[in-house]
Amino acid sequence: MSQETLRLGILGAGRIGKIHIENLANRIRGAAVAALADISPEELAAVAARFGISKTYADYRQVLELAEVDAVVVATPTNTHYRMILDAAAAGKHIFCEKPIDLALERISEINRAVALRGVQLMVGFNRRFDPNFRKVHEMVRAGRVGEPQILRITSRDPAPPPETYIRASGGLFLDMTIHDFDMARYLVASEVVEVYARAAVLVDPVFEQAGDWDTALVTLTFANGAMGAIDNSRKAVYGYDQRVEVFGSGGMVTVANNMPDTHVHSDRTGVHSALPLNFFMQRYTESYRNEMQAFVEAIRAGEPVPVDGQDGLRAVEIGLAAIRSARENRPVRLTQIQEGVSA
Amino acid sequence: MSQETLRLGILGAGRIGKIHIENLANRIRGAAVAALADISPEELAAVAARFGISKTYADYRQVLELAEVDAVVVATPTNTHYRMILDAAAAGKHIFCEKPIDLALERISEINRAVALRGVQLMVGFNRRFDPNFRKVHEMVRAGRVGEPQILRITSRDPAPPPETYIRASGGLFLDMTIHDFDMARYLVASEVVEVYARAAVLVDPVFEQAGDWDTALVTLTFANGAMGAIDNSRKAVYGYDQRVEVFGSGGMVTVANNMPDTHVHSDRTGVHSALPLNFFMQRYTESYRNEMQAFVEAIRAGEPVPVDGQDGLRAVEIGLAAIRSARENRPVRLTQIQEGVSA
Amino acid sequence: MSQETLRLGILGAGRIGKIHIENLANRIRGAAVAALADISPEELAAVAARFGISKTYADYRQVLELAEVDAVVVATPTNTHYRMILDAAAAGKHIFCEKPIDLALERISEINRAVALRGVQLMVGFNRRFDPNFRKVHEMVRAGRVGEPQILRITSRDPAPPPETYIRASGGLFLDMTIHDFDMARYLVASEVVEVYARAAVLVDPVFEQAGDWDTALVTLTFANGAMGAIDNSRKAVYGYDQRVEVFGSGGMVTVANNMPDTHVHSDRTGVHSALPLNFFMQRYTESYRNEMQAFVEAIRAGEPVPVDGQDGLRAVEIGLAAIRSARENRPVRLTQIQEGVSA
Amino acid sequence: MSQETLRLGILGAGRIGKIHIENLANRIRGAAVAALADISPEELAAVAARFGISKTYADYRQVLELAEVDAVVVATPTNTHYRMILDAAAAGKHIFCEKPIDLALERISEINRAVALRGVQLMVGFNRRFDPNFRKVHEMVRAGRVGEPQILRITSRDPAPPPETYIRASGGLFLDMTIHDFDMARYLVASEVVEVYARAAVLVDPVFEQAGDWDTALVTLTFANGAMGAIDNSRKAVYGYDQRVEVFGSGGMVTVANNMPDTHVHSDRTGVHSALPLNFFMQRYTESYRNEMQAFVEAIRAGEPVPVDGQDGLRAVEIGLAAIRSARENRPVRLTQIQEGVSA
Repeated sequence: MSQETLRLGILGAGRIGKIHIENLANRIRGAAVAALADISPEELAAVAARFGISKTYADYRQVLELAEVDAVVVATPTNTHYRMILDAAAAGKHIFCEKPIDLALERISEINRAVALRGVQLMVGFNRRFDPNFRKVHEMVRAGRVGEPQILRITSRDPAPPPETYIRASGGLFLDMTIHDFDMARYLVASEVVEVYARAAVLVDPVFEQAGDWDTALVTLTFANGAMGAIDNSRKAVYGYDQRVEVFGSGGMVTVANNMPDTHVHSDRTGVHSALPLNFFMQRYTESYRNEMQAFVEAIRAGEPVPVDGQDGLRAVEIGLAAIRSARENRPVRLTQIQEGVSA
Repeated sequence: MSQETLRLGILGAGRIGKIHIENLANRIRGAAVAALADISPEELAAVAARFGISKTYADYRQVLELAEVDAVVVATPTNTHYRMILDAAAAGKHIFCEKPIDLALERISEINRAVALRGVQLMVGFNRRFDPNFRKVHEMVRAGRVGEPQILRITSRDPAPPPETYIRASGGLFLDMTIHDFDMARYLVASEVVEVYARAAVLVDPVFEQAGDWDTALVTLTFANGAMGAIDNSRKAVYGYDQRVEVFGSGGMVTVANNMPDTHVHSDRTGVHSALPLNFFMQRYTESYRNEMQAFVEAIRAGEPVPVDGQDGLRAVEIGLAAIRSARENRPVRLTQIQEGVSA
Repeated sequence: MSQETLRLGILGAGRIGKIHIENLANRIRGAAVAALADISPEELAAVAARFGISKTYADYRQVLELAEVDAVVVATPTNTHYRMILDAAAAGKHIFCEKPIDLALERISEINRAVALRGVQLMVGFNRRFDPNFRKVHEMVRAGRVGEPQILRITSRDPAPPPETYIRASGGLFLDMTIHDFDMARYLVASEVVEVYARAAVLVDPVFEQAGDWDTALVTLTFANGAMGAIDNSRKAVYGYDQRVEVFGSGGMVTVANNMPDTHVHSDRTGVHSALPLNFFMQRYTESYRNEMQAFVEAIRAGEPVPVDGQDGLRAVEIGLAAIRSARENRPVRLTQIQEGVSA
Repeated sequence: MSQETLRLGILGAGRIGKIHIENLANRIRGAAVAALADISPEELAAVAARFGISKTYADYRQVLELAEVDAVVVATPTNTHYRMILDAAAAGKHIFCEKPIDLALERISEINRAVALRGVQLMVGFNRRFDPNFRKVHEMVRAGRVGEPQILRITSRDPAPPPETYIRASGGLFLDMTIHDFDMARYLVASEVVEVYARAAVLVDPVFEQAGDWDTALVTLTFANGAMGAIDNSRKAVYGYDQRVEVFGSGGMVTVANNMPDTHVHSDRTGVHSALPLNFFMQRYTESYRNEMQAFVEAIRAGEPVPVDGQDGLRAVEIGLAAIRSARENRPVRLTQIQEGVSA
């Protein structure tokens, strides 16, 4: 398409939708919000007023009918993605969709086929790939600065558990939270995961057990290139949002630490003290949300492939499903066992 | 004044003016750009187009005549500040002015008197006070976390010298560069500087000597409360923009380090390596520019005193003039010697 | 026994024997080297001369016959430990033995029974427990500073592979190298390991494959108290000896970093650089070797239990054997499966 | 002299004398303690017994008469150095003397002439030159890693003031404490100090004022090569012994931080916490005391110049006297003004 401004329809004006709208309004070059849909009239009116969006709809399909909309941002609950993406693809709109695309492999595959058939692009919102820290690790690995990757370590811990209603609709620890780490693993090691062993437990709050979920996990990944990865997760790190990775290889190691609100160090009689990490994903990943949307806009405008596509979305869910099965059965699970289940 | 949106006229569309305009357009709550003046028609047109500013003028006085302008941002060269501020005050506009207000104490005093007389407020752009790192140090000192301040250390080094034309018009090292550190010293120690000893040299580039200036300095400050301060400056730190402070006192110490673009640490056969500090003031102080303008807008809207006023602007220039005299005569200079010169 | 000087017979004057002799000669309070045995006459003569040891023997049994020897230090190859310990216990000597006690659980159990029967004490040389970093983590966990331990992470990587002859006699990665980490896991979490899942590969050097061994591993531990642990190992970290641990729990986290030869940080045009970690176990663990021997001497002199005993030595080997079976069969192995094998 | 063991007579069995004796007994290669003198019979007996020194004397001159003594270590109060060094030189003994040699320039010059005349060597105990951190900075500067040195920063703060009796006999802040930093400045910048400006105050304890002394100071040094240096001192840093340096130059910067007892970092709800620096000079400078004595022994045995000689001792006192005069008169003082005073 041409280099003109990309006109976006936003589907969903909730927490994540607002992040994208605000970025598009203020910080993204080459794009504009052309329309907004949300099922809540109040939310719709409030957000539209705040950002000066004139075209608003209760039904997302009305956005898809607008000729002036080039692409849509799907920022609604996971269980609505499938229908919206298929409809958007049918309407010839490019699509940016929050992760996960869906919880069922069959539906993701169907989405990927539909998108290919319609000739539109689908980008999946694995925003952490666009965080300056993780991108730097990715670039250094790709540039050979650690030699052959051999060991990957990811620590990913939330500051506090989400509300119980969120937990019950989330798809569970591995598809809601670890899925970011599964995508990160593929991004950093640049090799496909072939086997998963997951150990999971409820150590934080019994509410997870009641929801048939876990709150703490250790996952071992085996990659096609022989490398191994260890992910650890907790739903509750009292010191804040803990997001670190390390790639070790034949030529060296690269690690990234948490982001801090300031660099102060205070020394007194009792010790040396510094600030806690940024405590919430919207502060921690401010830049990554902006960067990912900028990347989507630029790829679509330039007619180039989006940097995170439906296959990436599929792979992460496959690994998540393998982790669930592994944790339930306490045995390593090969990705092919998950993938065969789909084709069957 | 009321809690309505503060309407700002921007005087000067150069490098620093653009920073303020962009922040006001996208990131400052409660304010809007109502008009813009610049002597360059091209610059004026380009900036107005980019940010959708409809009222533009070659002559700043036309901005002052607009009833809908509540306040002005003076972002023009230092030698124009005096006239503009007096005119703005006469027009009843509140004023935000870049540092330094002026290089002559008499003129700053005249400005401060005029502003008081007209009942408008003048805020001076010592943006570093609004940097999260330095603000944290200030707050911790004020909260008594270091006890009585005894020793202040400021390291302030530029990544590279400015162009020769800039050097010649800058007022020299102490009034152009160290002036930030003089204000920082007052901000962090919360006591007035009473004496200055400055040692300065040309170690970076002979162009400074030709301009009658220096490029490297060590300054010793004595505060009214007995504390002592050491500032070191260089116009050229090959590793980037070096901005650190340390306050030591009877109860402890607080320090802040440089800001980095990412947290990566790379270990290989040769050592452990990390990123260079953010290299340019516009990246390093992105947040501080935004925060200072937000503070100005909020103070004016609430009818409360601005956090950095004309007296602060005066004090910093006094210390700068004392430093110049000290470096020239190689002896400590008391601030009263500078201040008496003015009243004489 | 009384508070008199503890008189030690050293069995083995090789690399590790020399470390103990030098510490006993210069840095350990309350002990003296009374006799030395080694099968190499040259080594024996050289070490005896250097440290002024008058009683030297080719046959360790002659040391055991000396009435003036209160205790022995077994610093010979692993396959000799069993015989020496049984003989020393029969002779009524207290025993300090390098890890591992033996590679076979039955023989370790026999040793433990013999030692108990003879009323002597056996301490096993898990020196890392006496490293100031790891001891600090242990103490903080015990003091409740991380709340309930939930996730343990250990990174343990050697700077370079040992010689091939060493590899072939070592018992393999898990019993030679990871065994330190297995003991560290028990020491830090203060709960028994109940299950092990190990993934291992040859990514560094094919010589390991030829020896039926691995050079890279990820191990998942499950503890009796519900906590989980992840250990990663490599035989070759090009940046040096990498020894870090982290304990995460309901109340916080404590981590320790590598030890450096100095604290210098060098900033130049290319980045910010610091020293590589101490590169060899004898430098890295200088203090821990000294501290462990001091702890042995003090426990024996005071008639109190040694801090690391034969049960600790047994547990670490059990975990190692479980890891070997797990890696070979690619499935989690419960410790009871290993322990039953022994009693069977 | 030959490569045989250097036999040392120790003059003074106090705190610092014991450090040297213990190092010589256990950790220094190529030397042995042959005799010990101290005016306290109890101290003499206790130390001799502990380290097995058979020849002990109340009068140091008896040590100088022993043919088997090659060199002496002068570890007595400063006011006794002059007499002892002259006597030792007359007896043909090499001399290691604690800093400062003396508080009077004339007497130091006389000592230096006597030593040269007698053909013996005098090493002065500026032990910090032998600290791994500071030595690394020195080596990097010498290797050109910071380019031309331009700015030196030294922070040197004691954890707590010494007893009042010590203060009164110490020669004052600049000759007792800062003298280490003056020597460090020359060592790191590799250029002579030509001018000193010192600002000093009593901010810690009035006892310093009563003793005619100061407890807090900022010193500006000007070097012959154009570089500038800033030293800050306090007699009381509540967080421990604070010993940092930074050398900045045309090609980069090198800094060193404090030494810590361990590397632990503890994160909890309140912040991120780590250990305080090593708190006492004997722990902080354990290695430097050992290394300096080793360097003395090796230089004397090899017949090569000692690394810190009487001229170094003289220079540091000259700078200290300049600092005292500067602080008293509040003006910069050139070293030539101090040196001329001597020759007059």
